[in-house]
Amino acid sequence: MAGSSFGTLFRFTTWGESHGPAIGVVVDGVPSLIELGADDIQLWLDRRKPGQSKFTTQRQEPDKVEILSGVFEGQTTGTPISLLIRNEDQRSRDYGQIKDSYRPGHADITYEAKYGIRDYRGGGRSSARETASRVAAGAIARKILGPEVAIRGYLIQIGQDRIDPLRFDPHEIERNPFWCPDAAAAARWEEQLLEIRKAGSSVGAVIEVVAEGVPAGWGEPIYDKLDADLAKAMMSINAVKGVEIGDGFAAAGLRGEDNADEIRMGNDGPRFLSNHAGGILGGISSGQPIVCRFAVKPTSSILTPRRSINRDGDEIEVATKGRHDPCVGIRAVPVGEAMMAIVLADHLLRHRGVYARG
Amino acid sequence: MAGSSFGTLFRFTTWGESHGPAIGVVVDGVPSLIELGADDIQLWLDRRKPGQSKFTTQRQEPDKVEILSGVFEGQTTGTPISLLIRNEDQRSRDYGQIKDSYRPGHADITYEAKYGIRDYRGGGRSSARETASRVAAGAIARKILGPEVAIRGYLIQIGQDRIDPLRFDPHEIERNPFWCPDAAAAARWEEQLLEIRKAGSSVGAVIEVVAEGVPAGWGEPIYDKLDADLAKAMMSINAVKGVEIGDGFAAAGLRGEDNADEIRMGNDGPRFLSNHAGGILGGISSGQPIVCRFAVKPTSSILTPRRSINRDGDEIEVATKGRHDPCVGIRAVPVGEAMMAIVLADHLLRHRGVYARG
Amino acid sequence: MAGSSFGTLFRFTTWGESHGPAIGVVVDGVPSLIELGADDIQLWLDRRKPGQSKFTTQRQEPDKVEILSGVFEGQTTGTPISLLIRNEDQRSRDYGQIKDSYRPGHADITYEAKYGIRDYRGGGRSSARETASRVAAGAIARKILGPEVAIRGYLIQIGQDRIDPLRFDPHEIERNPFWCPDAAAAARWEEQLLEIRKAGSSVGAVIEVVAEGVPAGWGEPIYDKLDADLAKAMMSINAVKGVEIGDGFAAAGLRGEDNADEIRMGNDGPRFLSNHAGGILGGISSGQPIVCRFAVKPTSSILTPRRSINRDGDEIEVATKGRHDPCVGIRAVPVGEAMMAIVLADHLLRHRGVYARG
Amino acid sequence: MAGSSFGTLFRFTTWGESHGPAIGVVVDGVPSLIELGADDIQLWLDRRKPGQSKFTTQRQEPDKVEILSGVFEGQTTGTPISLLIRNEDQRSRDYGQIKDSYRPGHADITYEAKYGIRDYRGGGRSSARETASRVAAGAIARKILGPEVAIRGYLIQIGQDRIDPLRFDPHEIERNPFWCPDAAAAARWEEQLLEIRKAGSSVGAVIEVVAEGVPAGWGEPIYDKLDADLAKAMMSINAVKGVEIGDGFAAAGLRGEDNADEIRMGNDGPRFLSNHAGGILGGISSGQPIVCRFAVKPTSSILTPRRSINRDGDEIEVATKGRHDPCVGIRAVPVGEAMMAIVLADHLLRHRGVYARG
Repeated sequence: MAGSSFGTLFRFTTWGESHGPAIGVVVDGVPSLIELGADDIQLWLDRRKPGQSKFTTQRQEPDKVEILSGVFEGQTTGTPISLLIRNEDQRSRDYGQIKDSYRPGHADITYEAKYGIRDYRGGGRSSARETASRVAAGAIARKILGPEVAIRGYLIQIGQDRIDPLRFDPHEIERNPFWCPDAAAAARWEEQLLEIRKAGSSVGAVIEVVAEGVPAGWGEPIYDKLDADLAKAMMSINAVKGVEIGDGFAAAGLRGEDNADEIRMGNDGPRFLSNHAGGILGGISSGQPIVCRFAVKPTSSILTPRRSINRDGDEIEVATKGRHDPCVGIRAVPVGEAMMAIVLADHLLRHRGVYARG
Repeated sequence: MAGSSFGTLFRFTTWGESHGPAIGVVVDGVPSLIELGADDIQLWLDRRKPGQSKFTTQRQEPDKVEILSGVFEGQTTGTPISLLIRNEDQRSRDYGQIKDSYRPGHADITYEAKYGIRDYRGGGRSSARETASRVAAGAIARKILGPEVAIRGYLIQIGQDRIDPLRFDPHEIERNPFWCPDAAAAARWEEQLLEIRKAGSSVGAVIEVVAEGVPAGWGEPIYDKLDADLAKAMMSINAVKGVEIGDGFAAAGLRGEDNADEIRMGNDGPRFLSNHAGGILGGISSGQPIVCRFAVKPTSSILTPRRSINRDGDEIEVATKGRHDPCVGIRAVPVGEAMMAIVLADHLLRHRGVYARG
Repeated sequence: MAGSSFGTLFRFTTWGESHGPAIGVVVDGVPSLIELGADDIQLWLDRRKPGQSKFTTQRQEPDKVEILSGVFEGQTTGTPISLLIRNEDQRSRDYGQIKDSYRPGHADITYEAKYGIRDYRGGGRSSARETASRVAAGAIARKILGPEVAIRGYLIQIGQDRIDPLRFDPHEIERNPFWCPDAAAAARWEEQLLEIRKAGSSVGAVIEVVAEGVPAGWGEPIYDKLDADLAKAMMSINAVKGVEIGDGFAAAGLRGEDNADEIRMGNDGPRFLSNHAGGILGGISSGQPIVCRFAVKPTSSILTPRRSINRDGDEIEVATKGRHDPCVGIRAVPVGEAMMAIVLADHLLRHRGVYARG
Repeated sequence: MAGSSFGTLFRFTTWGESHGPAIGVVVDGVPSLIELGADDIQLWLDRRKPGQSKFTTQRQEPDKVEILSGVFEGQTTGTPISLLIRNEDQRSRDYGQIKDSYRPGHADITYEAKYGIRDYRGGGRSSARETASRVAAGAIARKILGPEVAIRGYLIQIGQDRIDPLRFDPHEIERNPFWCPDAAAAARWEEQLLEIRKAGSSVGAVIEVVAEGVPAGWGEPIYDKLDADLAKAMMSINAVKGVEIGDGFAAAGLRGEDNADEIRMGNDGPRFLSNHAGGILGGISSGQPIVCRFAVKPTSSILTPRRSINRDGDEIEVATKGRHDPCVGIRAVPVGEAMMAIVLADHLLRHRGVYARG
């Protein structure tokens, strides 16, 4: 209830601050007899971990995960799985300025307003470091979903520069440091980000995550719609300001006849002729690919001085030195994939519990 | 857990089908000693009720609400408030075609896939009729928030035609049937909708909802962020395909220095020089107005025939006759306002429970 | 969260006051395609309804249930089932004394302390009238469990007079107004209660509820143990002060070797030679009958004057005239059965969701 | 939802197996600005830890707790508090017999039935070792309650030997290894347990926990009654088979006039002349001491051979060698105290959230 848990049947709780001794996650509700080892989780953590290219923060974190419970002789036992990731690179530094001042656009000021105290070191609990725990939980969610469900995320926009859908090449995604499916856009983004990094600035991005292989029927109606839960999941990621399903905001501009996904019969059930709906109708999966997009704002920790105040109410200027991501949207790709897996795994279990009919 | 409840401390459950005897909502977690009468709720229901202009469905529903519990001698007692709204205009009609066929873009096919049965009369549970219960719950939420929090919703786009922000006039909102703050846009929309209605088509829209007077500190961090809960709340409304907070998707195109809301000292605390963040930082309210937008797709029930299938798997064409909204986005305005009030009331209580310090 | 809901996957919310226009319950999480009519529910309500013998309250309530949603053409649709029971016999009377004074042993004083207001008419929300909603929800829970699970409740003690286990005859239960399985005890109880009723007094009782046919494996470990949920369910019934599973408090007096339920192989799995555990080990069902007992205190509304205070803090004497149960434990039997069915149905769905393995 | 979490606003999740690398608990919902150090928690863990007398298991566990998050510069920050306790004494031993056979009266067989797998080492997740996490969470709950609420637990019965209420001396509780308030009973129990230990047997017990200083008004009505939550909390402790509030089962034997706690006016509000109710009326605290009792069955791990089966379905005899508690009820005292603190802290926050009125 205090915000650090997510999910209903597949439910996890994360904990830990950016510069405390460790972060972690406890995942409850995992069915038993699933093969699981630290490697299955490490695989996905390695995709998110910082310091992999010059376009992400230079903080060095091996992000090695330890399984402390819930797995016995290589299989899940049905009991809670506790995962621990130590914080290695809590670089000794002077937090003098951050300690007492509020970065514009950052949660510094609201945490202080809410709690009357904040662990200011590296952003404390509000740091995107927490997303490593999401990726770890997502790795377990993928195990529950099994190989039938394929989830893939990628960047489709950095700053104002969007990919050309006609140049979409799934193989390209793993070939550049931006998870960009359009080689030409990736080249342009590299230039843009070098310039932004040099200027001590930052920029936003748009991520798309697609899940294929989800059968029709997942999702609860009304308030726990599959898309409502996805919207919550994605909006809960640090710096996200917008979420779309299928055509999203563009759907507002369509007429009914253009938005309708017409249906024919395929070999194994209904076959839709388009996917404006993004695979969800009335909150329930239709069998088409689930398509979700979210927008990430530019990091608020920048070198350019901005006007602000400090804890004493003095008017000051703030410029944040440190090892920050020029485009935090890049590392949001594996996080978005993880949240998609998490929401789907939860709805798989929920669907099975109530609606599975002998 | 099965999807018909929303909220944590302020928690309600809706029930009822479009053409059953009644719909209703049970609201639990309402503090005692709040003055409440049916009129306080009716006021808001009347804004949503159908048949008020030629631009909404011609179904005639008085939508009279009855309070069945939780209020004693004009005051809330702290026990659950049960509200009942009878369905009056369940027009006797032939559901022959809808009964066995799936409207493209509609939840017909997914409800059938999930449950193996559906109440096809008027869309059953998937009908937007359920949103009357939301508006009723929202009326109670407003009572909890009190007069300090002012919530206002309006349309900013119909089809591809967006309002001119420079022409924004709050007084205009109540003067036209579109809740449109731009008189010139309202005039254009009238023409557009007359044409669409005549063509038996439909069109989408974008709604903006703003809450003023929310103090700093509401919202839980990480997964129950105020914006995450708003995203879920808005995406759960029928036909919504996208949600934005503050600058939303436009934030992706900004640089850090342009996105930062700079801070100065005002007379009674921090004063922000802009509101790109939409009043929420790190999931917690900053004291600025909360700004939320959502996109509604065009109604799928249209006169234009579309290709589809029926329950037997035969390929057919579907055209929906009946009393439908040419732009369901119009009636989504009071629903969006209600969901904003609901999320805020819940977070007010949650904040007070855990973080209020003597 | 405010107390009027119960369950997780099978989850219901009750509402209504003793002397308001109606009471009711909304049941969410019911699987679709279950045959259900008002008669299926009425059957169980009739067992609980007042005025059936001289040993229960003389209030006349037909307790006719109406299904307002969630059932279509005789089958559940998977959407919330709303049930309504009108209050018919809100006898016009003078509540003068109850209005401002607190009955010793009654919730009058604590509701007032908590809420600063209470609907004093007939006990308002704290009245046992709420248990009709439980029985209605329990009727649906039984439908989910199916005929394989047989639940039977009965009284084993009134006042200090306990049945003789050697005289236990299941057929006797329906033959006397006390749900008593021991004919000799029933005869004694009749005399005892006539005397108590005449004296304007009341007396407590002990109820036992047994569920047969529950397979091994239901229940979650640690905090949501099947017995923990049963304890909560039974203790939540009005006037209950104690709950036991299996041998209960008597287990404290046993040695390990006497408490162990030894196991042999039966034709279709393990066969236990005794059932001290009451069918639950480590919070999970063992396949043996689930055995639960609970103690009900005597009604606090009695004719004998007791010392108390009123709202102004004056010291007074209170004697409650009215139509009350001399032994509220009698009508607690169908309520206890309902709560058993509810807990089991919820755990059936929970077990199926997470642990069912292809 | 899978059983390892407890509470609503004050909510924690435990994890870990008896012989895994560690156990732990994540506590979410702790208000900020509470002074908290490892010592505050260690204090209570030391009361529960094994090996302190010859009447508890000889397993040697220092049970040193580490705080991994949620505390900054000695104060809680409002973010989740993660506590870790390493398992030191996972004595290398032969689990041959336990591995494939089921101890009668133990959760071995039901875990196997539910999950199809179990970590058999030391009982795995079903071991009472999990209760160390409860005690740690309870220590934080006490901090939330503050010094006004005093919680005290003690044994009142071992085997069939109950204390004499007239000899109740609170100072005696800390003077003997049984938390026994009656010196004469403690002497008798010592003899009894020496005999039982020698015989390789075990015995049950009854624990009473009392909370003083709880103001009137805590607890939610109907399903989340304070006593219903206490019943669930206590019944969730390993080996507990019965729970009572106030007079408990004895209330069944009383008449209304004897059970009524009469009320007079005291200096600062109502003054009750007796406490049959155990401080709770209608699920809500009355301002009197909260009185709760629970019965613990004898440990099922005993030396005396009992008939059972193994995984292959062979009929065998089982005798458990190892370091077990002859009376597990002794170490249940600090666990019962912790659960009382946990339930009260949760209801304090819940009450404050919804019902606190300006």
